[in-house]
Amino acid sequence: MKKILLILILLSGICFTSCENGKKEVLKNNSASSKSETVNLNSWADEPRQKIEAWVKSVTDSSSKNYIPVADRIAVFDNDGTLWPEQPLPIQIVFAIDNLRLLAPKHPEWQQDSVLNGVITNNFEPLKKSGAKGLTKLVDASHNGMTEDEFNTAVQNWIYTARDMKFKKPYTELVYKPMIELLSYLKANGFTNFIVSGGGADFMRVWTEKVYDIPPYRVIGSYGNLNYEITDGKPVITKLSGDIYADNKEGKPVAIHRFIGKVPVFCGGNSDGDQAMMQYTSGSKYKSFCLLIHHTDSVREYKYDLVTLSGHLETALVEAKEKNWMVVDMQKDFKTIF
Amino acid sequence: MKKILLILILLSGICFTSCENGKKEVLKNNSASSKSETVNLNSWADEPRQKIEAWVKSVTDSSSKNYIPVADRIAVFDNDGTLWPEQPLPIQIVFAIDNLRLLAPKHPEWQQDSVLNGVITNNFEPLKKSGAKGLTKLVDASHNGMTEDEFNTAVQNWIYTARDMKFKKPYTELVYKPMIELLSYLKANGFTNFIVSGGGADFMRVWTEKVYDIPPYRVIGSYGNLNYEITDGKPVITKLSGDIYADNKEGKPVAIHRFIGKVPVFCGGNSDGDQAMMQYTSGSKYKSFCLLIHHTDSVREYKYDLVTLSGHLETALVEAKEKNWMVVDMQKDFKTIF
Repeated sequence: MKKILLILILLSGICFTSCENGKKEVLKNNSASSKSETVNLNSWADEPRQKIEAWVKSVTDSSSKNYIPVADRIAVFDNDGTLWPEQPLPIQIVFAIDNLRLLAPKHPEWQQDSVLNGVITNNFEPLKKSGAKGLTKLVDASHNGMTEDEFNTAVQNWIYTARDMKFKKPYTELVYKPMIELLSYLKANGFTNFIVSGGGADFMRVWTEKVYDIPPYRVIGSYGNLNYEITDGKPVITKLSGDIYADNKEGKPVAIHRFIGKVPVFCGGNSDGDQAMMQYTSGSKYKSFCLLIHHTDSVREYKYDLVTLSGHLETALVEAKEKNWMVVDMQKDFKTIF
Repeated sequence: MKKILLILILLSGICFTSCENGKKEVLKNNSASSKSETVNLNSWADEPRQKIEAWVKSVTDSSSKNYIPVADRIAVFDNDGTLWPEQPLPIQIVFAIDNLRLLAPKHPEWQQDSVLNGVITNNFEPLKKSGAKGLTKLVDASHNGMTEDEFNTAVQNWIYTARDMKFKKPYTELVYKPMIELLSYLKANGFTNFIVSGGGADFMRVWTEKVYDIPPYRVIGSYGNLNYEITDGKPVITKLSGDIYADNKEGKPVAIHRFIGKVPVFCGGNSDGDQAMMQYTSGSKYKSFCLLIHHTDSVREYKYDLVTLSGHLETALVEAKEKNWMVVDMQKDFKTIF
């Protein structure tokens, strides 16, 4: 929370996106659901590609001692920084800001709140001063109290139209091409792919089926409390304020147990927040594969690890060496980023 | 809880199962995963079969106004009383008792506890007297504190060997044949089946893949807190005592949102505990189908609805008439039960 706040502070005053609401774009490329595309790992450099292929070949060959039955081929992927960028801000925070502004006309009471009014009027000073409490207030106001339908519609309207400031593209076109190839490649080899992200599950589920070919029930993320009731004869689920299950660090293996119920055999991540689920994957009774993405490309994407405000990578890099997890040097190992 | 306790009281003193530990049986029949079997609804009487077939035909015909895309064909099923019996006791409670007795030699401290020692020595009087608190203590002692591996192994060893007292068969052979046919039939028509049960998710996940052809990550149930840590260099998940998420009544649609992230279009249940998820299904934007099983066969299975201690069915039966949910009269509509 503190780190995200620091980013907000650094970026204060910026108008985050040029969101063209109501104008939905058809997703053009990079979709793992494009069935006609050939399944390959062409966007990977030879060395990491061969490592992945060798492992997949070994565990899918029924005559191999490393054979993994299809039912146990569970692959888990972090999202922010692993399948799409998390710089300069996690994309869901950008959504929270944009959505707050969109909702503001219906919430005149927010004008009385210095933090919320500040975000709405492009003055981030009060948010800075209020610390993590202010960020919680922002996300709470932007997300909670909304019904299931309202929230899904808000994300739907935003995700295909908002533009990233650096790349001037919708976020759904900023997914990493090598990773999308990897999702397709694993699927074609009998693996079942899951997202296990610190981001909000509800935020991701709206678009992951189209973008990653991963249905909502295989998207695990942070989640909050909900209310179910019949309103005007209709069943309504509403997002409530309050305790959030944080799907990060030790929360990731716990969520994998809770939502998947099997130990994964493949894990992709990019930060210390993914380290616990990599350990958990490494503890599989099968020969597992862990892949740790290192953001090393300041030109084509972003360069960060230790000195970063989101996606800190330090102890996982050490354990990667000890446990022979594959470290992906994005500059060197990704022929194409997007 | 009170109702389950009452059942325990009624059945006190009974040796619940003849569990032949260590002797695993290969599942012989009734498995939805038997790929070679023809997909049909032959165990259903004509009228309910035709109703199901007509709906499936209507929603899978791409030229129909009722067409449902494959990705949205989400089917949810209660387990106890819907896919297998819940009389005279929910099967997980029988497991809890048997497992407590199996674990007892390693827990001499239980001898000092009148409730636990009573269950172990076939004296249910202390459990009766201690009310719901005692039952919680039983399940807690039997289930919690175990690691993921220990618990899975315990259920695995028990489920294929323990015998139901009335039918003298392993519980996995006491699944309702018409419902297994229905699972296969829906799957063959592009539906994705989920369990949404008040029973413990961890208890079900061990055997549902084999018995229902439903993988663990599509089994939703009640769940508790977990701990993740590295012990002796290995990642270990342990079941903790404490708050339980009760996947029952309003908890079911909330869990469907949390775990599936889509509104179901098909729902099967058998009690008032399933009513909320039926309402939620009925609220789908698509033409949905709800099926409510009424236990009417005292000879081939059990007869109960209002006067029962598990699976109370009253208000859901009223709403079924109002909303045209299909009520299944087991005696009349199931040609075969098991």
